[in-house]
Amino acid sequence: MIDLRSDTVTQPTAEMWDAMRAASLGDDTLEGDATVHALETLGASLAGKEEALFVVSGTMGNLIASLCHAVRGGEVVLDAHAHMAKSEAGGLARIAHLYPVSVPSTRGEMDLNVLADSLRPGFSRYGQPTAMVCVETTHNHSGGYVPSLAYLADVRGLAAHAGIAVHMDGARAFNAAVSLGTHLARVAAYCDSVTFCLSKGLSAPMGSILAGSREFIAQARTFRRMVGGGLRQAGIMAAAGKVALDTMVERLAEDHRRARRLWQGLADLDPTLVDPQPSGSNIVRLRVSEQRTTDASAWARALEQHGVQTRASGTGMLRLVTHRHIEDAHIELAIAAVARIREA
Amino acid sequence: MIDLRSDTVTQPTAEMWDAMRAASLGDDTLEGDATVHALETLGASLAGKEEALFVVSGTMGNLIASLCHAVRGGEVVLDAHAHMAKSEAGGLARIAHLYPVSVPSTRGEMDLNVLADSLRPGFSRYGQPTAMVCVETTHNHSGGYVPSLAYLADVRGLAAHAGIAVHMDGARAFNAAVSLGTHLARVAAYCDSVTFCLSKGLSAPMGSILAGSREFIAQARTFRRMVGGGLRQAGIMAAAGKVALDTMVERLAEDHRRARRLWQGLADLDPTLVDPQPSGSNIVRLRVSEQRTTDASAWARALEQHGVQTRASGTGMLRLVTHRHIEDAHIELAIAAVARIREA
Amino acid sequence: MIDLRSDTVTQPTAEMWDAMRAASLGDDTLEGDATVHALETLGASLAGKEEALFVVSGTMGNLIASLCHAVRGGEVVLDAHAHMAKSEAGGLARIAHLYPVSVPSTRGEMDLNVLADSLRPGFSRYGQPTAMVCVETTHNHSGGYVPSLAYLADVRGLAAHAGIAVHMDGARAFNAAVSLGTHLARVAAYCDSVTFCLSKGLSAPMGSILAGSREFIAQARTFRRMVGGGLRQAGIMAAAGKVALDTMVERLAEDHRRARRLWQGLADLDPTLVDPQPSGSNIVRLRVSEQRTTDASAWARALEQHGVQTRASGTGMLRLVTHRHIEDAHIELAIAAVARIREA
Amino acid sequence: MIDLRSDTVTQPTAEMWDAMRAASLGDDTLEGDATVHALETLGASLAGKEEALFVVSGTMGNLIASLCHAVRGGEVVLDAHAHMAKSEAGGLARIAHLYPVSVPSTRGEMDLNVLADSLRPGFSRYGQPTAMVCVETTHNHSGGYVPSLAYLADVRGLAAHAGIAVHMDGARAFNAAVSLGTHLARVAAYCDSVTFCLSKGLSAPMGSILAGSREFIAQARTFRRMVGGGLRQAGIMAAAGKVALDTMVERLAEDHRRARRLWQGLADLDPTLVDPQPSGSNIVRLRVSEQRTTDASAWARALEQHGVQTRASGTGMLRLVTHRHIEDAHIELAIAAVARIREA
Repeated sequence: MIDLRSDTVTQPTAEMWDAMRAASLGDDTLEGDATVHALETLGASLAGKEEALFVVSGTMGNLIASLCHAVRGGEVVLDAHAHMAKSEAGGLARIAHLYPVSVPSTRGEMDLNVLADSLRPGFSRYGQPTAMVCVETTHNHSGGYVPSLAYLADVRGLAAHAGIAVHMDGARAFNAAVSLGTHLARVAAYCDSVTFCLSKGLSAPMGSILAGSREFIAQARTFRRMVGGGLRQAGIMAAAGKVALDTMVERLAEDHRRARRLWQGLADLDPTLVDPQPSGSNIVRLRVSEQRTTDASAWARALEQHGVQTRASGTGMLRLVTHRHIEDAHIELAIAAVARIREA
Repeated sequence: MIDLRSDTVTQPTAEMWDAMRAASLGDDTLEGDATVHALETLGASLAGKEEALFVVSGTMGNLIASLCHAVRGGEVVLDAHAHMAKSEAGGLARIAHLYPVSVPSTRGEMDLNVLADSLRPGFSRYGQPTAMVCVETTHNHSGGYVPSLAYLADVRGLAAHAGIAVHMDGARAFNAAVSLGTHLARVAAYCDSVTFCLSKGLSAPMGSILAGSREFIAQARTFRRMVGGGLRQAGIMAAAGKVALDTMVERLAEDHRRARRLWQGLADLDPTLVDPQPSGSNIVRLRVSEQRTTDASAWARALEQHGVQTRASGTGMLRLVTHRHIEDAHIELAIAAVARIREA
Repeated sequence: MIDLRSDTVTQPTAEMWDAMRAASLGDDTLEGDATVHALETLGASLAGKEEALFVVSGTMGNLIASLCHAVRGGEVVLDAHAHMAKSEAGGLARIAHLYPVSVPSTRGEMDLNVLADSLRPGFSRYGQPTAMVCVETTHNHSGGYVPSLAYLADVRGLAAHAGIAVHMDGARAFNAAVSLGTHLARVAAYCDSVTFCLSKGLSAPMGSILAGSREFIAQARTFRRMVGGGLRQAGIMAAAGKVALDTMVERLAEDHRRARRLWQGLADLDPTLVDPQPSGSNIVRLRVSEQRTTDASAWARALEQHGVQTRASGTGMLRLVTHRHIEDAHIELAIAAVARIREA
Repeated sequence: MIDLRSDTVTQPTAEMWDAMRAASLGDDTLEGDATVHALETLGASLAGKEEALFVVSGTMGNLIASLCHAVRGGEVVLDAHAHMAKSEAGGLARIAHLYPVSVPSTRGEMDLNVLADSLRPGFSRYGQPTAMVCVETTHNHSGGYVPSLAYLADVRGLAAHAGIAVHMDGARAFNAAVSLGTHLARVAAYCDSVTFCLSKGLSAPMGSILAGSREFIAQARTFRRMVGGGLRQAGIMAAAGKVALDTMVERLAEDHRRARRLWQGLADLDPTLVDPQPSGSNIVRLRVSEQRTTDASAWARALEQHGVQTRASGTGMLRLVTHRHIEDAHIELAIAAVARIREA
């Protein structure tokens, strides 16, 4: 089976397992744990922030960031298609008590005019000030597009002008950095806080990093405890995460190269099968809405019969994600499978 | 001065003042007050609901309804241009903890296909169920349009099919009923709870009614206390409200007739000055975006120099509202003032 | 009937009615209203604060203060018997999201050692910092006791040392000031924000003032709108409130003198009938727990048969409250009624 | 070093490591994972509940339970010394929006009269109904005492009579069951929902189980996602947890036997050194308040010089906890160390 469902299926490497067994066993919620500390120090350094916090998931990182920023206001301005808006169960409103103000977006970039109009710098008769603006990179629900640094700078500029913080949901921020040919710190320079995952393409079994200022992380630590994310023996998980940061970032370029080849192979079959532009990262969307069979789940079943696992993404689309367990030959087999299904 | 800024400027009638001075002075939060009880009984009856609660404002009625319905879920599906979404300071998220899911709308009626897709009947991996659907009549931010009974029935049908409650923000629901040639109970039949105002066109100095089932109102009573809306000597205010319901509903037809004449008079000057269709209620929007002077506040100042007070509404629009203190002659003067400004 | 149930039964004075009819009718939520502005200016001045806000009830004032202070932390330290803890329906947690940390109290004064141990100056592994400390004067559930200025200074000192704000629930703060022989500003000097009522002993039909710094009140204005406390034609109610502040404060000394006489008369019958010390304000508690009949509601019924209305307060106690409609002769009749019931 | 600081220091067993490496790697938040499913099925069965959910910590399990039960009301009645009240960062109020009503307790058992008075069956003028009653076993902040089954039955009876749910914080519920000579299901029979940990004495590296009715767990699954506790490759952690449940429960009796010996050894030195009764579980408190040196941290340092690690617990107390890595000889060495410090 060629598993293109998600990069979340990646397994820990042998080096990760060794690190897990050798991990220190301090109580991270009490005296602290050396492995966790090392991971957090590395994570902060890579993100170019003062401090960092190990959390069990990207959703938790985003939620904690929301709780921290929420002291400054009552609204969050974010992309209408953001993962935080669509796929995090409404914690923004239910737990962080922020009113979500949606901005339309294209390929992961919000409309800057609408964004500018949506910012509220202070208390007014219309409501509380904007607590934060959220950006997302790579952008999941658009199919993995990579917002440009110029766009991130523009968002940052608008927000900063209004005195509003920017949070980056960087679940796949390393994919973004690699795709843009730069370092994470360059991408994260345009935000006050950032979440990035150690799992997904980096292959650790779980965990994410939330990074920001010293004061921000001190608050985040309290909120992590409050949401139940404080782990006593966090060292085991942190050990795998540190190996992920040390060894797995550069190879993301391989995933991108293969995704690009997949996009091209499908586009050669029929340009309407894919988005007009390649995403630049490790996600390709197969658009079946103009095919003979327009039912995405029928396509998914047909592909599975050809040994290719995919996942529905919205209506009329399948999502194909490259990762460490996908090789060049798998890409060609997937293209061939699509070709055969179209011919059937 | 011809004050067309809002129907909220209406003054209490002499009968209201008499009733206020004669009001019982029971402690409504403790043993109850006879005047309040009479008002609530009348309000429930007019709305066709089991019980009703006197609250100090429409926003409070909507907030309390949100708090009550919020036990059933975590999302509220509502018109992107709803007063509850735009003009109630975000209490939906900050206080009722509901995630607002916006539906596009035309003339106060939401797109039913998008609405249907937005409803979530139960707990799922994507989030909490929808707690309520909100409708608004007459619809403020569209310029006073009156959603049809067929539309309300459709919304109700979709929500009921998914087991979801409907709340009606009926700040001007009596205007809607009068415009539709029916009674409030007919309009409110399509919702589980409804808020309607005693001020505005009905001329009471303050107060609104929240109506619903017996169980709902019992809960609402607790939440009213929690938000600080429990008044001890509520009888004075309730007395004026009862006179409003007894004496002021039918005359709303006069306001509508005058607003229709105002719309027609302006349309005769230039059809682009007004919305393509009259609102059906007591609001007319003056669209200056295609005029020589496109600045709404410059228009407002010019009108004020001609003795006509208006209020900006969105970009490039002024809102003109008829009410008890506006007579036929005022309408003609307002039309003439617009004509003169265009000629200047 | 001699109505000693509460000072909330007081009726508006003739001067208040005149002021209400003459009130300006501006839209307080939009352009502002002159009468409301005058009331707020006077309220701020009397409280010795920069600005003030007219709210419909003391509970709303306390809730809005809680919402404002809540940006600084997650806990509220307050008297276990505070009105905000016991009688405001849990809005502190449900709406302001503050965790209540209770401190034991005697005659309305919290144990300062426990208080000191309960303050949390910053974020820590145990939780969010303390958002505010609450004091209450006069203290309702203890039977109207008046905390000393020295006590208020001590609380203020402890809180200020930890960088924590103090909010005063001064529903009857004018009673406290009159009892202490000073002005409201002297009492309120020990808090950052204060709520005081215009109804109760001051006899306005409704309304309270929330006072604090300019920045605090700007935020409070937004939250007032959010909880539905923004009234358009607030001038009518504000007019009565302003008369209350102008004319009704000094006469509270009469209520206190009569309450003291009532306490003494009952103590002369039997010292166990009353609290060991008079409250100093307008509340007297009749303790029936050591009488032949220990059932407070049986006592209330018996007193009502003698023409005296009272209200149960906790277990084994009745609360008797003096106010503008209670005269010296009523006090003697009430004492006589108790005497007769004991003899029966 | 003899590490008596906490049973959280226990390391995974060899069998756990093997299970972790062999674990299935399904996406637990999407298609589900076989290992997680097996763990949850086993957890539900052991707790005697319909279903169960794997969560990353006991705090998260308690928080999710609070979020689920919170739909029924607005107050939580719990022990003033509960872990949920003191050590979970106030999430009850900040996130679940419940007002905590504290009940005094002795050796982990709440005063049943106060408890009965604190329950609120429905909406009233005083507030929202009680959402849940919480019990805790073994009881952490009292020093590990084990509430009796009769007590649990009484709490359950009072709550059920008022129609209120009971949640059990059973972080060490297996210790309680073993101490009471029964099975977990017997202990958990007195609650609607229960959290128990797989770490601590059971030695898994992380994770807890939340168990309850089918409907409850369906809701809990959504809230787990919302707080960021949804792990994709949860199988690795779940594998260790399943081994913990399969192999580590019965040996808790060893920890209890050793703790009992430790209590006795210390009591033989000086009865005031320990609580009057042994806890019955794996916790012993060393009370230094009547010793020559009353400073707990000085004692901790002195013990560390004798090779014994402990942890401060409240004022004037140290907490000594037995677990899998503590052997009989360690207990004797710890007793001898205390003896020598007293003689010094």
